[in-house]
This record gives sequence, C-alpha cells and structure tokens, in this order.
Amino acid sequence: MSDPIAIAATADGLQPTLDLDHLVQASQQLIEAGRALDAAGQVPATGGNFSCRLSDRLMAVTASGCHKGRLTSGDILVSDFAVRLLGTSRKASDEARLHGQLYEDLPQAQAILHTHSRAATVLSLCHEGDTLNLEGFELNKALEGIKSHETPVRLAVFDNTQDIDALALDVRARLKADAGLHGYLIRGHGLYTWASSMTACRRHVEALDFLMGCELELRRQR
Amino acid sequence: MSDPIAIAATADGLQPTLDLDHLVQASQQLIEAGRALDAAGQVPATGGNFSCRLSDRLMAVTASGCHKGRLTSGDILVSDFAVRLLGTSRKASDEARLHGQLYEDLPQAQAILHTHSRAATVLSLCHEGDTLNLEGFELNKALEGIKSHETPVRLAVFDNTQDIDALALDVRARLKADAGLHGYLIRGHGLYTWASSMTACRRHVEALDFLMGCELELRRQR
Amino acid sequence: MSDPIAIAATADGLQPTLDLDHLVQASQQLIEAGRALDAAGQVPATGGNFSCRLSDRLMAVTASGCHKGRLTSGDILVSDFAVRLLGTSRKASDEARLHGQLYEDLPQAQAILHTHSRAATVLSLCHEGDTLNLEGFELNKALEGIKSHETPVRLAVFDNTQDIDALALDVRARLKADAGLHGYLIRGHGLYTWASSMTACRRHVEALDFLMGCELELRRQR
Amino acid sequence: MSDPIAIAATADGLQPTLDLDHLVQASQQLIEAGRALDAAGQVPATGGNFSCRLSDRLMAVTASGCHKGRLTSGDILVSDFAVRLLGTSRKASDEARLHGQLYEDLPQAQAILHTHSRAATVLSLCHEGDTLNLEGFELNKALEGIKSHETPVRLAVFDNTQDIDALALDVRARLKADAGLHGYLIRGHGLYTWASSMTACRRHVEALDFLMGCELELRRQR
Repeated sequence: MSDPIAIAATADGLQPTLDLDHLVQASQQLIEAGRALDAAGQVPATGGNFSCRLSDRLMAVTASGCHKGRLTSGDILVSDFAVRLLGTSRKASDEARLHGQLYEDLPQAQAILHTHSRAATVLSLCHEGDTLNLEGFELNKALEGIKSHETPVRLAVFDNTQDIDALALDVRARLKADAGLHGYLIRGHGLYTWASSMTACRRHVEALDFLMGCELELRRQR
Repeated sequence: MSDPIAIAATADGLQPTLDLDHLVQASQQLIEAGRALDAAGQVPATGGNFSCRLSDRLMAVTASGCHKGRLTSGDILVSDFAVRLLGTSRKASDEARLHGQLYEDLPQAQAILHTHSRAATVLSLCHEGDTLNLEGFELNKALEGIKSHETPVRLAVFDNTQDIDALALDVRARLKADAGLHGYLIRGHGLYTWASSMTACRRHVEALDFLMGCELELRRQR
Repeated sequence: MSDPIAIAATADGLQPTLDLDHLVQASQQLIEAGRALDAAGQVPATGGNFSCRLSDRLMAVTASGCHKGRLTSGDILVSDFAVRLLGTSRKASDEARLHGQLYEDLPQAQAILHTHSRAATVLSLCHEGDTLNLEGFELNKALEGIKSHETPVRLAVFDNTQDIDALALDVRARLKADAGLHGYLIRGHGLYTWASSMTACRRHVEALDFLMGCELELRRQR
Repeated sequence: MSDPIAIAATADGLQPTLDLDHLVQASQQLIEAGRALDAAGQVPATGGNFSCRLSDRLMAVTASGCHKGRLTSGDILVSDFAVRLLGTSRKASDEARLHGQLYEDLPQAQAILHTHSRAATVLSLCHEGDTLNLEGFELNKALEGIKSHETPVRLAVFDNTQDIDALALDVRARLKADAGLHGYLIRGHGLYTWASSMTACRRHVEALDFLMGCELELRRQR
C-alpha cells in the first residue's frame, strides 16, 4: 500500500491529510466488496471498479487491470479527485475520474461501486431514452431515501464512450439537473451507484441488480 | 437477546410466559434459515423477514433493516402478535404484524418465512387475479397436506401497500374465506408461507420458489 | 445402517447375500451424489431419489421424505427389487419400485438417479409426444454408448401418476420396445437415468440437465 | 506425470527439450483453470479440454475422458503438436490436434481453453453464418488487443464434426484469411480461445461467456 508519509503535495500546493487507519479500513472494504461482487457474477474478467472517499479531496480507488474478485491491498491506490495518484507507480482504473467527479459533486457519497452485471449490460442496451425508472417493486426501499414501493428508483442512462473526461462532465450536468438519481448506467457497460457508506452502497448494488433482473424478465413476459 | 425476566406484561395484564430454551432454538433456526435463503438469492439487500411461534401469544421475529444472510441472535426480537416488543429498544420489521396476524388465525403455524425471490416478484406482477394456482407439478407434494400432483398449490395474491395493518386485515379475510391456501404473494414484493415447523416452512419456500420459476418459464415457452 | 445379519429371507425363501463393504461404498456414493445434485439445484425440497445395485436382487435406495442434499447413512435402505425392505422400520421412497423395475430389466444398470431439475420439469410439460430427442449437441457423447453428436439422446416421456406400479409396467413395456433409451422423463416431475456405475450416472445427469437447458433456450430463441 | 528423461524422439529425429519446471507450472495452471471453469458451469460432464504451450514443438494437454473440475497432475499429458504423446500410455483428448494446430499457426498463443458453456452451445446453434460479431460491449476490452467497445469481438463459427483433422485444416484456413479472430465456436459444441498467457486466456473465457450470455438475452428481448 502507498506510504502515507511519501504522498506528494497536490497541484494547489496543499498537503492533503491522510488518515492511515481510514485507508486500511477502506482497503479492506474494497477487497471484500470485490470478493462478494465477483461471487455474484457482477465483475466478470477485469470489469468494474470501486472506491471509498478518504477526505474532502482524496479517495481510495482500485488499480487498472486487476481482477476485482482477487484484490489485494497493493491494488488499492490513493488519489485526489482529479486522479493524481499519491505514492505509487501504478495506474488507476481508466474510469477513476468518474469516481472523483461524483465525490466532488455529492458530498454525502462515501463509497462508489461500478459493476458489469449481465442485467445492467443488457437492460442499458435495450432501454431507449436517457432515464430508466424501476417502478412498483418493494425492494426500491433498499435505496437510500426511498420509503415506499410507489417511489421509483431512477437511473440516468448514458451512451458508452472511451472519453471519460467528457462522460464525467455529462454526469455532472445530469446530477445538477436531477438530484433524485440513485445511480447511472452506461450502455453495454454497467452501473455506477453511490451511498453514504460502503454497507449501503453494497446494498444498492444488490438491490439494483435484482431490480434490473426483474425488469428484464417482466419485459420478456409482456 | 432480550432478557426473559425483563419482559413486560401485555395489554390484558397477563404476564406472557417465555421458555428460554425455545427462544434459543428459534433464534438458531431463524439465523440458519437466513443464511440458506441468502445463498439461494431469495433475500436480496435487506429484503425478507422471518419468525417462529414461541407460545399462544409470543413470537420471535427478525429486526428491521438487517441483512437476512448475516443475522445474529441480537437481531431476533421477542414480540406479542400485536407487535409490542418485549425487552428491547430495537424496531421489528415493518411487516411483523403480518406474522402476528397469521399466528392468531392459524393455530397450526409454527414458523413463517417471507422472501423476495425474483420469481415471486415477477410472477406476482405478471399474474392477474387474486389467486395463483400452481398445477400439475410433482413438487406440489412438498407442501403440507398435498398428496398428489393433481392437487394445485394455491397462493392468494394481494396488491402491495405500505399500510401493513390494512393488509393484515385483507389476509385475515382471505384466510377465512379460503382455508386451503399455502401462502400468499404481494405484488412486486414477495412470498409469505407458513408451516407446522421451521423445517417444513423452509421446504415450502424451496418448493414454491422452484414452482414459480417453472411457471414463469412455462409462460415464456407457451 | 441396517444390520446385514438381520436381513430377512425374501418371498422365494432364499437368503439374499449382502456384501457389507459394497453397501458402505454404495451409501457413500449416494450421500455424495445427493450433496452434488442439491448444490446444482436438481433436488429441491425433498425431491429426487437415488439407488445403487447391490446384487442381482438387492439395491440400496434412499428413504422417503428426506432432503437429498443432507443424506446420512441412516437414510440409505436395503431393499429387494419388489421394495421389500430388509432390517429397517423406515419407509423407502414412494418411487423405489421404479428403481427395482429398472434393475430387473437392465442387467447393466448399477446406479439410478432421479432428479427434479427445473429444465426437466418444464421441458417435460412443454414437449408433446412420448419421446424427446436431443439432437446435434457434442455433449450427447457424455451418454454411455454415444460416440458422435449425430446420434440423438433419446428419453421416453410419460405422463405423471401417483400409481407407481402402473408406471413401472409402462416403463417396462417402453424399454422392451426401445432398447436405445438413455432415461425417461415424467411430466412435471423429473428425470430417471441409469448407467454402469455411479460415476457414469452422475455424468449422465450433469449432461442431460445441460442438454435440456440448452433445448429450452433454443426453443425460446426460435 | 510423464518422466522428462523418458520422452521419445519425435518423427524428425530431434529430441524435444522439456523444461520440467515449466511443465509443473503448466500442470498447476491447467488444474486450477479446470476447477474455476467447472464452478462456472462451463465444462459439464467430461466436456472441454485445455492446454499450455511448453516450447515451439510441445504442449501440455488434458487427457481424454476426465472431468475437468477434478483434474490431477496425472491427467496432464505432454504431446507434440501432431499429438504424438511422450512418456505416457494414456490417450489425449480427441480434440488435442485442434490445440496443436493453433500453436503451430499462432506463435503468440501460450494457452488454449476449450469450454462447453450453455451460452456457447445455444448461440452457435442459433447463429447463421460463419462469423459471430459481438458488438458494443465495454467488456470487449477484456480481449487482448481491443482498446474500445467500438471494436467488435469476432469469433469464427464452424459446423460440428467428429473429423478433427479436417476441422483443424478449416481452422487453419480461416486464421490465414482473418488474423483478427479472438476464438471460434463449433456449433452445438463450444468455444476455443487462446491468449498470450493462461491468465489472459481465462479472462478471455470469462469475458466471452458473459458476452455470449448478453447477446442471447438481447436477442430474446428484441
């Protein structure tokens, strides 16, 4: 794991503070989340990436190219939200900027999980329009802030792109226009969701994958 | 676990009796049922709730908001059937009254399991009418009282609501009108089933989920 | 396990011989098969039953009503092919006579597995006619005696009934008319297959469930 | 395992060199790949076969007829690319020549995995034409050499045959005509894919099975 003493000053010249205990805890949470999501088939191959907020300018985020079911502490990198890595020669996930942007825009977000489930991949490709509403399910209540099955879960839907900086700007614009989103889908790619803790974020992923699986099955039956 | 000495008198002034060994056994059964149902994908996120009858006025029931695959004895609460909790400051599941009502109306019911499987969620939303008959399956015989595949398994179907007291009254009315039900579905929500023991109730859940999965697949094929 | 010394004479007055080592080995094979088939979702609730041939007149067969994923040696009963049990007060599976009939008619059969998979249940209900041919799959070669994907796997299909003696006679007649069958389906119920060893029989079940799952998916796609 | 000292000269009279450490490592990789692919349901019954390149004329390849989820080092055979086995009396997989041909034609290939997943079996039977393009999925990037979801994954599709030598010639011709293939499907049979390491090859299998599952689901939805 990166040495907290060796971390460099960021561009604005301020030394970010890093709580080592917080980093150790975050690493463990990310490693465990990876194991569980791999067992659930949601991070095939080297798909997916995960992060925890460490402070108001730092996050712990998974390295590029590793299998998320077999993470070790060396695969957890410390970065600021602009993806300037601290104390490591490794590369963060290509999509780390999407995590940084969410931490900048959503002060309540403490954890972010990006998964590649089959339901997310297929439903995002089938669904037209830029928002997916999941409606009428009791399990909607598993999402933070939802108290009734009558409240839809709302996910933004973006076309896939390899231009991550541009996508981060699109996400920023959508979040400003629509504060009620619980996550977003990238077409043919996967799900991003965030929550006020890693426990809640894992609950979001488990619920959203279940709901998207139900939605696909309902569309087959109709 | 709640202290059996500390339990308060109920509204009618009678001190309910509580057999501690029975409570310990019930807790273990509920914890094990949760682990098995989580492994089977039937209690995603914090979905589902479970109970055992302790006496003619008390039940052991799962606490609100915990993951059913990772229950501990502290998550098992003692309550009367009107959901007045004994010796705890925690909150029972929002739906605990549905358990209490079933124990009031079905003296033979010793265990109740409520699950959120994908098959139950989808089939309850696809199916019109207030009763679902599962017909022609050998596995019907896994339900208590059924001796032949020619006897249908019958589940009542209710629309979902957050008004649990009203739903409990609807269930009561249906059970009075139709003594042959083996459980009920709440649309977009899940399954309730009961049996004369926890072993039999787990067998009911396993069989009903299998049967509903077969029914969905048959509807796709037809 | 039943005491080999205590076994009674059969109806024809001959004392059947029982090799205790053979019985212990058969018990272990049946227990292990149950665990594997339960993990694969093929014996939900108390569905399924299994047997091994012990001699030219005896078989080891699973007891009635037990969960096949959690068998113990006490659940393995010794019976002749007419289902007269030896040295036990327990009841054999209702369908034990179907095993006995197969051992009578198929001298090469050393093991029989009856499973309740979702694919077997659904496909047997969708399929019209009294024979199911599975054609064009490389995995056909996993069945004993098949050397090419061009040889179909052939399963007889019977309507379900609770009259097991009558069903045993129907199976006998079909086997006489058609020596090339690899097993049979009972509609809405499940699969019977046999082989020259338990290892081969488990391979048959694994292959047949895979093939029936492929067949269902192909019918959905067409 | 075959004794490296005992290996015979090949037809051209040259003694192939065999690095024992390399062979031990290859055996371990093949055994582990089998366990993982069995757990993922991709090698039912005795389906599938695997290999690692050992040199410019030798490969380690799985023996015929064994269950790929329970391989031992004795099931890993050393062979030249024409399937002349060295130091063993066992038989290689019927399809070992398909591995040898790929190592002859693709110098960068260090590992080859052949699997029998349900998605590969069904999709190869549904799909008309001799090439399957998987398009628009982010997970395409899990395949070696693909940097964007806009690059399709391309698999050749061949009709099944028991004439393996003829099939090897067909594969050779297709690879010469189309250097961009990531693997091939045999109809009703399964997938072959190769990569520059076993780790990469397992990633290919995991990604391709996911992508084919998504493709089947998309075709159902459309």
